[in-house]
Amino acid sequence: MKIIDISWPISDATTEYKDQKTIMFTQLKTFDKDGVRESSLCFNSHTGTHVDAPSHFLKDGKTIDEMHLDRLMGKAILLDLPTIGDSITEEDLHGYEMEEGDIVLLRTANSAYEPTDPFAKDFISLDPSGAHYLAEKHIKAVGIDYLGIERGDPEHRTHKTLMQADIAIIEGLRLGHVQAGTYFLVCLPLAIIGLEAAPARAILLTGAP
Amino acid sequence: MKIIDISWPISDATTEYKDQKTIMFTQLKTFDKDGVRESSLCFNSHTGTHVDAPSHFLKDGKTIDEMHLDRLMGKAILLDLPTIGDSITEEDLHGYEMEEGDIVLLRTANSAYEPTDPFAKDFISLDPSGAHYLAEKHIKAVGIDYLGIERGDPEHRTHKTLMQADIAIIEGLRLGHVQAGTYFLVCLPLAIIGLEAAPARAILLTGAP
Repeated sequence: MKIIDISWPISDATTEYKDQKTIMFTQLKTFDKDGVRESSLCFNSHTGTHVDAPSHFLKDGKTIDEMHLDRLMGKAILLDLPTIGDSITEEDLHGYEMEEGDIVLLRTANSAYEPTDPFAKDFISLDPSGAHYLAEKHIKAVGIDYLGIERGDPEHRTHKTLMQADIAIIEGLRLGHVQAGTYFLVCLPLAIIGLEAAPARAILLTGAP
Repeated sequence: MKIIDISWPISDATTEYKDQKTIMFTQLKTFDKDGVRESSLCFNSHTGTHVDAPSHFLKDGKTIDEMHLDRLMGKAILLDLPTIGDSITEEDLHGYEMEEGDIVLLRTANSAYEPTDPFAKDFISLDPSGAHYLAEKHIKAVGIDYLGIERGDPEHRTHKTLMQADIAIIEGLRLGHVQAGTYFLVCLPLAIIGLEAAPARAILLTGAP
C-alpha cells in the first residue's frame, strides 16, 4: 500500500482564504526552558485542506460531526483539467467516466500555486453547471485543489447544489504531485461538534493494504 | 467495510488535560445575519484525539509533519484491560499476542469517562515497564483511551521510551463502544508544520473496502 499525502500543510505562512490572517501558533512550553514542547493554535475552520459541512450554507444542513465518514472514503477518480482558465463547466466534465458513489477530485492550474502563495482571487472554481452535472451523476464527494470550490457567486449555487445533493465538499487539496487515475481516498476531518467545516488530513492509497 | 469512529469529539465542553481551558470557538458569520456560517477555533495541540510527535519530548525528535503516516495505519489489536487500577505494566501485557509492526490499542477503565467529564487526575496510564515491553515487541504505534499515556513521572520515561523506539503515540481515543479484537486503524493528524503534536481523526475499519 502506498500512501500519497494530498493535504495542504498548515503553518503561520499558509495561504488563507482572501488572505485573512487567522492562523496563529503559541509556544506554551519550549524544550530549552521546560524540557518539553507544547503549543496551542488558532485558525479558521476552513484552513488548509478542509471539509465543508452542509450547515455552512444550508439553514438545516448537517454539521461536520454529523457527516458520515463513508462519504469521504472510497474510490476516487482524479481528473486532470490543466487548460481550464476560469471555471469547470458541465461541458468540461463530459467524456470522463464516473459512477454513482465515486469521489471526483479536480486537478486544475490551481495546483501550480505554492501552499504559502498570496491568495489567488481568480482561482479556478466549479461552475454551477458542473455542480449540477456531478449531482446528476450521484457522486458522493468532490474535491478541488484550492481553498474554495466556488468564486464570486453571491447565491452560492455551486455549494448549495452540491450540498442539497448530499455531495461532500473537500477544499484545499494538494494534487500537483499526483497523476490522473483511480485511487482510494481517505479524508478525515476533525470531529468538532456543531461546526460548519473542519480541517482534515487527506490521503490517496494505491495497492493493497 | 464498516467504519468505527474512535475519535474524541471536540466542543468547548470537551475534557482538557489538567482542565486547562484552551478550547474556544468564535462565530465569524451566522446563518441568520449573513446567510452563511463560518467559525474559527483555538485549542491546545494536544486536544481530543491527538498524536504526540517525538519532538514533544525529544530534543531532536521529528515533528508531526515529519512522521510517516504508515505508522498510524495498519493492523491494530485492541486489548481489553478493564481491571487495571493504576498503570499498565509489562506483566499486564504478557499473554497478548503482538507482532512486529502491529498497532496496540489499550482499552482500560478510562473508557468509562464521558468526553466532557472533568479531567481525571488518576487516569490509567502506561507504566515505563509496559512501554519497554512494547518497544521490545517492535510495534509501530500505541493508542490509549485517555488524554495522556503517562502520569506523574517527571522523567517522562514512558513517552521517551516509546519515542526513542519510533513508536507513534495516540492519546485521547474513545474505545468504550469497541470490542476487543483485530482491526485496521487509520489515524490522520492534521498536517501542521513543525508542531510537536496535532489533533487527529481516528477510525477502525472492519471488512473489505
